[in-house]
Amino acid sequence: MILRLSNLFVRTLRDDPADAELPGHTAMVRAGYIRRAGSGMHTWLPLGPLVYRKVEAIVREEMDRMGAQEVHFPALLPREPYELSGRWEEYGATLFRLQDRRGNDHLLAPTHEEMFTLLVKDLYSSYKDLPLSLYQIQIKYRDEARPRAGLLRAREFVMKDSYSFDVDDEGLEASYQQHRDAYIATFDRLGLHYVIVSAMSGAMGGSRSEEFLCPTPVGEDTFVRSPGGYAANVEAVVTPVPDPLSYDDVPVAHVEDTPDTPTIETLVAFANEHFPRGDRHWEAADTLKNVVVMLRYLEGGRTPLVVGVPGDRDVDTKRLQAQVEPAVVEPFTDEDFAAHPALVKGYIGPQVLGEDSASGIRYLVDPRVVEGTRWVTGANRHGHHVFDLVCGRDFTPDGTVEAAEVLDGDPAPDGSGPLELARGIEIGHIFQLGRKYADALALQVLDQHGKLVTVTMGSYGIGVSRAVAAIAETTVDELGLCWPRQVAPADVHVVNAGKGEDTGAAAEELAAGLDAAGVDVVLDDRAKLSPGVRFKDAELLGVPTIVIVGKRLVDGVVEVKDRRTGEREDVAVAEALDHLIAVCRS
Amino acid sequence: MILRLSNLFVRTLRDDPADAELPGHTAMVRAGYIRRAGSGMHTWLPLGPLVYRKVEAIVREEMDRMGAQEVHFPALLPREPYELSGRWEEYGATLFRLQDRRGNDHLLAPTHEEMFTLLVKDLYSSYKDLPLSLYQIQIKYRDEARPRAGLLRAREFVMKDSYSFDVDDEGLEASYQQHRDAYIATFDRLGLHYVIVSAMSGAMGGSRSEEFLCPTPVGEDTFVRSPGGYAANVEAVVTPVPDPLSYDDVPVAHVEDTPDTPTIETLVAFANEHFPRGDRHWEAADTLKNVVVMLRYLEGGRTPLVVGVPGDRDVDTKRLQAQVEPAVVEPFTDEDFAAHPALVKGYIGPQVLGEDSASGIRYLVDPRVVEGTRWVTGANRHGHHVFDLVCGRDFTPDGTVEAAEVLDGDPAPDGSGPLELARGIEIGHIFQLGRKYADALALQVLDQHGKLVTVTMGSYGIGVSRAVAAIAETTVDELGLCWPRQVAPADVHVVNAGKGEDTGAAAEELAAGLDAAGVDVVLDDRAKLSPGVRFKDAELLGVPTIVIVGKRLVDGVVEVKDRRTGEREDVAVAEALDHLIAVCRS
Repeated sequence: MILRLSNLFVRTLRDDPADAELPGHTAMVRAGYIRRAGSGMHTWLPLGPLVYRKVEAIVREEMDRMGAQEVHFPALLPREPYELSGRWEEYGATLFRLQDRRGNDHLLAPTHEEMFTLLVKDLYSSYKDLPLSLYQIQIKYRDEARPRAGLLRAREFVMKDSYSFDVDDEGLEASYQQHRDAYIATFDRLGLHYVIVSAMSGAMGGSRSEEFLCPTPVGEDTFVRSPGGYAANVEAVVTPVPDPLSYDDVPVAHVEDTPDTPTIETLVAFANEHFPRGDRHWEAADTLKNVVVMLRYLEGGRTPLVVGVPGDRDVDTKRLQAQVEPAVVEPFTDEDFAAHPALVKGYIGPQVLGEDSASGIRYLVDPRVVEGTRWVTGANRHGHHVFDLVCGRDFTPDGTVEAAEVLDGDPAPDGSGPLELARGIEIGHIFQLGRKYADALALQVLDQHGKLVTVTMGSYGIGVSRAVAAIAETTVDELGLCWPRQVAPADVHVVNAGKGEDTGAAAEELAAGLDAAGVDVVLDDRAKLSPGVRFKDAELLGVPTIVIVGKRLVDGVVEVKDRRTGEREDVAVAEALDHLIAVCRS
Repeated sequence: MILRLSNLFVRTLRDDPADAELPGHTAMVRAGYIRRAGSGMHTWLPLGPLVYRKVEAIVREEMDRMGAQEVHFPALLPREPYELSGRWEEYGATLFRLQDRRGNDHLLAPTHEEMFTLLVKDLYSSYKDLPLSLYQIQIKYRDEARPRAGLLRAREFVMKDSYSFDVDDEGLEASYQQHRDAYIATFDRLGLHYVIVSAMSGAMGGSRSEEFLCPTPVGEDTFVRSPGGYAANVEAVVTPVPDPLSYDDVPVAHVEDTPDTPTIETLVAFANEHFPRGDRHWEAADTLKNVVVMLRYLEGGRTPLVVGVPGDRDVDTKRLQAQVEPAVVEPFTDEDFAAHPALVKGYIGPQVLGEDSASGIRYLVDPRVVEGTRWVTGANRHGHHVFDLVCGRDFTPDGTVEAAEVLDGDPAPDGSGPLELARGIEIGHIFQLGRKYADALALQVLDQHGKLVTVTMGSYGIGVSRAVAAIAETTVDELGLCWPRQVAPADVHVVNAGKGEDTGAAAEELAAGLDAAGVDVVLDDRAKLSPGVRFKDAELLGVPTIVIVGKRLVDGVVEVKDRRTGEREDVAVAEALDHLIAVCRS
């Protein structure tokens, strides 16, 4: 294949587009791979599908290799299956809902758990039919609150989603492992670097869940890793629980007037000045910060929740949200405060909290708040704090919750050392669903003893269009895109950088020779452009090998440049074809 | 590739499914290629995508070969571009519309003319950039009033749509011809038989339009063809206009009491009994049937239209609709009659019609109603008809309209003989759009003289999922599917029809040998099934070559059967592999 820039439907942009935020996305727009079609919607120009289809083919090959079978569901679906599973409501505003001309409710599927479950129920009935893994590569829709980052968080995108069906937990574990291996093979072939991190699975009812994250500062997922090999997304990080402390010597709790201490910082400073402790200075970690939120439930209703965390860290809303799903965390408004007079804004303290208290307000604390810990915290009176309030003596929380932010240097829960925080792009997710959907949709088979058993499922996703973006973001450099050869739109970019007919003819001949050998070529045969513009475009487009047929042709050489390393070498014209074929096949 | 029926996700059905109407669709459901997912929505089981992807690959290859470049738009789009072209309204109830979480209007695209036009406008600005042809293969959505016939009229389906962009009419003609040639090559490779028929293009503003129809009695499109090579869909058939007649000898028109003549048949019988004409009997073709309908306009408003056709034929609503687009033909209700007292139900006559008449009601007639023709028609009085009413003497219509049904034996407009009516499945449509979208969206380029000119466009579609269905419908036989080799899910279906281990091992060996040679195999390795069930399933699945490894293995032979012709031959086991490879490659 020869892509001629003289007629390829592409225009490179000199300036960064207004709608692009990330370096890879910016380069993809500037190089003419994609364009914005609407909020969270993208149009692929001709170079784009060439990369996309190579990525898709690798994903498909590895799924086929592991024995998964390809099916294909509509993206537009009737409401009923999602009603049965509860997700018609659960998905909230992220689900695109619409009605057809008869007024029947439909949705644009964000994932297809229900359809896969019902399909297997339709066709299979015996343990002998299992294990089974099915997949599809299909457009998905999510009405994101904040579409951003180009292909990384789009409202229409392509996903490979697969599902495993097993008769028992060992089977599920084996299917899960097969998918894990297939994902490793897939991402390795795509040239993506990745970390496999533990992920939350509790709320979805499953038992094991891991994410494949591509580490990059522009990633929107935060994860942690330790020197000893622990890795998890922040939602899944478990806080090591300290031993209880003796509190025999702790003085009785005492309320103090603490004017002008609206923040933890001012409170600590005030305490050190007016109520110094003998042994050391007060620190932020000695204070107990009580944060109140509203939980909104799918079935209707809102209830307040107070979360107590050591004052040296904030509540991480994403972590809290992950713990309370499918309830939704909402801000506690001034109206809410008015309706709950027990809560004094800025001075909430544990003494009035708890399901058994007069207020009845649920109170969960960070796992570090163990029995015997001694706190400075709100006294439920404006301008007042209480000192020496001891957990287990002066208050008893309703339980603990993993909602405090994770900080660099926190200990890994498995003792493998201090955690380092990093960012990444989620490119894959594997998930032991268990029996949630099989229960909801009554997917059962007969086991060896002729007894009906509920099937256990796994759910596995790869963002195919997102993988293209992840490759772009993690390989882009200051000159532009830099595709790994296995997904590049072509192997060689031939630049005719001369002005005479000689270089034109030589460039054409070289391109024809490469094409005949099955090497895909971008040929810059555009008229009347300076060599400088051509070189810049070649760097920007990101084909792995660049050949410059230019001034040096009179000396019988062309210049071959490796896009990634920037290494250049002169190659004799007579040997250029063989040399390039060898480079492309190495 | 070896597809083992022992673990392939498929269950063949013995009985015809309730939701399948056509033989090919029924067979695809029974053989486990597709299943219903909702009204007009289909799920593809593993055998389905194997066929689908081969069809898609052929379509893509031929588009690439003709120099069209692949792009990809979202299916979910914002309202604005369709507002600019007027199609947000024009599309009526067939357009799926929805709002996102911010209340912004969106649609699921039925075709992408607007997006292609805007994209080219975005990137190109000079005649030097043209000609250009772009295509995509993408899911489309139409909220059909009556989804039916499986994949043939679905609400979610896959289309290859392409668009050509030229600076002048000659360019458009050349691009159109290129697409026409590419479509011929595509459908030839798919093994589809087709007729290229002239189609209506008037209402869309274009100048030339043809459809590729696959002739089959189950097709939902009606077309005509003549022995001399004329072919058109019924909407496009032009009625030859007779010469005017002399009416000097025709008596003065006279109204007669004609009780109990509610139909043309009873009227003709009554006329022959009570008002015989001297020269011959009255015939239905001597009566003028006036049919009133309402036209509803997009911009609002409804106006009546009366269509006069010879009484031996009905008004064909599809033909009429095609003529009045984008207005919509609606029935004339009793309320409408009440509002228009000039129209006497069942007895409408031309005397009260016409834009210049007192009623002001528009009156269009069939082209056969020329000056001098003499009619029996309604007298605008209940129970009365007028005789010897002469066109051009007693009434003057506002114009003619191609709305009368086309009948077998009507003359072809080009004099190439009598028309034959036939049915077909539309598999492709090529269309000279002209400047409709370029005008609406201001797509202009500079010409050679530096002057801005509006681009002229063509629009070209192939229903990719529909092509799969068309192949199925036109090749299915009483035993099941019968795929052409180039799109079949596999080349050879190996049946282990024996009971012992010998046949099992021989079948496995044969399948392995074929697979190693690059021949795709379905292997029936299921346990405990009668040979009869296996044979039936093999016929139903429709792989082109069936090999039976069974009883005759003891004699050293296997049986090779051609699925289409039913021809069988015994082949020595030792030669079977080479024989089959030769068959598959021939």
